[in-house]
Amino acid sequence: MTAEKVLLVILDGISDRPCPELKGLTPLQAARKPNLDRVARDGICGIMDPIAPGIRPGSDTSHLNLLGYPPEKYYTGRGPLEALGTGIRMEPGMIGFRCNYATLDDQGRVIDRRAGRIHQTDDLSRAISEKVDLSEMGVTFDLRSGAGHRAALAFQGDGLGACVSSNDPKKEGVAPLRFRELRDSAADRKTAEALNIFVEQTNAVLGRHPLNLSRRSEGLAPANTLLIRGAGEMGFFEPFPERWGLSGSVIAAATLIQGIGKAIGLQYVPVAGATGSIDTNLGGKVEAVRNELESREFVLLNIKGADEAGHDGQAKEKKEFIEKIDASLGPLIGIENCLLVICADHSTPCSIRDHSADPVPIVIRGDGVRTDSVRTFDEYSCAGGGLLRLPGSALMPVICDLIDRAKKYGA
Amino acid sequence: MTAEKVLLVILDGISDRPCPELKGLTPLQAARKPNLDRVARDGICGIMDPIAPGIRPGSDTSHLNLLGYPPEKYYTGRGPLEALGTGIRMEPGMIGFRCNYATLDDQGRVIDRRAGRIHQTDDLSRAISEKVDLSEMGVTFDLRSGAGHRAALAFQGDGLGACVSSNDPKKEGVAPLRFRELRDSAADRKTAEALNIFVEQTNAVLGRHPLNLSRRSEGLAPANTLLIRGAGEMGFFEPFPERWGLSGSVIAAATLIQGIGKAIGLQYVPVAGATGSIDTNLGGKVEAVRNELESREFVLLNIKGADEAGHDGQAKEKKEFIEKIDASLGPLIGIENCLLVICADHSTPCSIRDHSADPVPIVIRGDGVRTDSVRTFDEYSCAGGGLLRLPGSALMPVICDLIDRAKKYGA
Repeated sequence: MTAEKVLLVILDGISDRPCPELKGLTPLQAARKPNLDRVARDGICGIMDPIAPGIRPGSDTSHLNLLGYPPEKYYTGRGPLEALGTGIRMEPGMIGFRCNYATLDDQGRVIDRRAGRIHQTDDLSRAISEKVDLSEMGVTFDLRSGAGHRAALAFQGDGLGACVSSNDPKKEGVAPLRFRELRDSAADRKTAEALNIFVEQTNAVLGRHPLNLSRRSEGLAPANTLLIRGAGEMGFFEPFPERWGLSGSVIAAATLIQGIGKAIGLQYVPVAGATGSIDTNLGGKVEAVRNELESREFVLLNIKGADEAGHDGQAKEKKEFIEKIDASLGPLIGIENCLLVICADHSTPCSIRDHSADPVPIVIRGDGVRTDSVRTFDEYSCAGGGLLRLPGSALMPVICDLIDRAKKYGA
Repeated sequence: MTAEKVLLVILDGISDRPCPELKGLTPLQAARKPNLDRVARDGICGIMDPIAPGIRPGSDTSHLNLLGYPPEKYYTGRGPLEALGTGIRMEPGMIGFRCNYATLDDQGRVIDRRAGRIHQTDDLSRAISEKVDLSEMGVTFDLRSGAGHRAALAFQGDGLGACVSSNDPKKEGVAPLRFRELRDSAADRKTAEALNIFVEQTNAVLGRHPLNLSRRSEGLAPANTLLIRGAGEMGFFEPFPERWGLSGSVIAAATLIQGIGKAIGLQYVPVAGATGSIDTNLGGKVEAVRNELESREFVLLNIKGADEAGHDGQAKEKKEFIEKIDASLGPLIGIENCLLVICADHSTPCSIRDHSADPVPIVIRGDGVRTDSVRTFDEYSCAGGGLLRLPGSALMPVICDLIDRAKKYGA
């Protein structure tokens, strides 16, 4: 028998380096994780370079590569993907940005880059959308609030470039920077000018917005400016169902991953309580996966919390969240007719507090897979598995071959 | 000591996936194969992606890649290689095709795509060669009968293209298709037109041919048309002796492999009774190899039967044929001064009944080779070998390095 469906579980940033707090083990090694180990025992394991050995992947470039869209061709910056994930309809040629609502003091200096970790900014984004006007420049815009202090922005108009700087000073106590073009290009200059006008008008709208007046009166940091970064031009993505012949869904709390899913034509399936943190609704995500697998041939499940713990340098928290993930995975193992692939998009070592290029463990379980002697799913054991060391770009071809959807090259 | 000669044994399609009929083993694992295991014990093992991980190789693209001719540069379709293998002298620019003799009913519908598996069609090909005339189009042709119902065809003339469709409807009960160009190109259109005229005249010749009249009277399916496919323009291949500095021979029953050998300037050595099936004359092929190694530096031996059993989904037959292969290999092991390389060109899993991209096992045995602890030649054991996972394009460079024929890159 050969499986006809695929569940790709990407445990974001789950792999790590030896942690002193865990007696030199990685969080994956230290965690009790009977389900992941069972998959390792029944499947074929290996390690994978999401991009290439020694190249530190972003979550965006890695997911694109693992899904079969080489980032050197398809990645134009995080902005357009975040914009898609935040709900903006991005068309090829539009320029997308990531934004933070932030706090300026009376001298115009950034004093909180996250506006007191404000939770709900929909009213602010709506006010900006109504009152800010770039029509003089021939630019229309779409601004949407995301989770917490986050938002996304998109510009549409003739002759806009994406090679522009950010206004984020990256530290507090100094004024935001002015946007400027990063090349001598009229298109980039036009975008930088439009951004400067956009922020000027936005500051005026936000400064007198009732929500900010009431925050001030409550002693909370007002969200009275936007820091904008990650500019990128939306490109054209050949739809996943055409590229790989598989209909698909994406289940992910992170807007970036949702955006990547939408960009390539996967159906985004929202899950109540999915947060992208270690308090996420794992059960809800797992149930959504099972549901999607009824009607879809390919489901991408991204679980983000371990990456966050790695960024925070919290090895024990990471280990404990891995145990929670493991406990939730039971219903996804051994689904009939379904190839199960579990891997990470990159390592996020607690000692680095950021992504690293250390290869990630991968396991593939399903009918027809050549197994190996690996019995534990971790960075060390998987290095002895039958897949040996794969490049991330091989993942979709290998999956399609295993489910007999690959085309023969030659005769 | 360093070996000076090379025997490359390609066990076509020998690797597989776990087979239920073999208690979850692959045919290679299940087979008793003391000779192959001995080579594994004495040599260095690994797994190899004939093209790249997840890319399903054809026998043609894989052999080209393993022999050091990257298919993305050298592969133009199966037709010209089959034509060469069938005995047509192909010059660069000629268009080659594969053909089947087939049976049309009185309404012109294909009722047997293999003309009752007719055995001997030389008389038919000769009659066509004498009577069909494309000179009005400025085209000359060469048609040769191959094994059974197979034949090969080549066109020569100015301004011929190779991007044309086939007339093979791929099923019975419907009329053959008309040839047409697959791009808006005058050259492709000319070839399509020449093919349509060729088949029209051919049908007239075959319909009244005495052999077909007598087949009809015996109740056998007449071979009264040709189905033509695999169009490709013959390219230029740098001769193997120049590319690798080694004189060489090819011993293979499959016309495709003979054609590849001829294309790259290996001497084709015919062996009586070599069939490309599990009834092939293994002893004769082995004897021919020993003979060639007296005078040649490089011998390619292709043994095809296991691939055929895989295409037929016959796991037990495949296992038994592997045992036969193994029993025949004795005289080829331990030849003095000869590096022995054994691998496959692709996997042909019985569960898929076609080629797959699962990596193939490889072993290299000879003086100076770093050995490893692998003691069994199969897909699983070899994954633990000292070669780890090689791309097929590395095979000839690795071989040349081991026999001290590699050039230094740099100083």
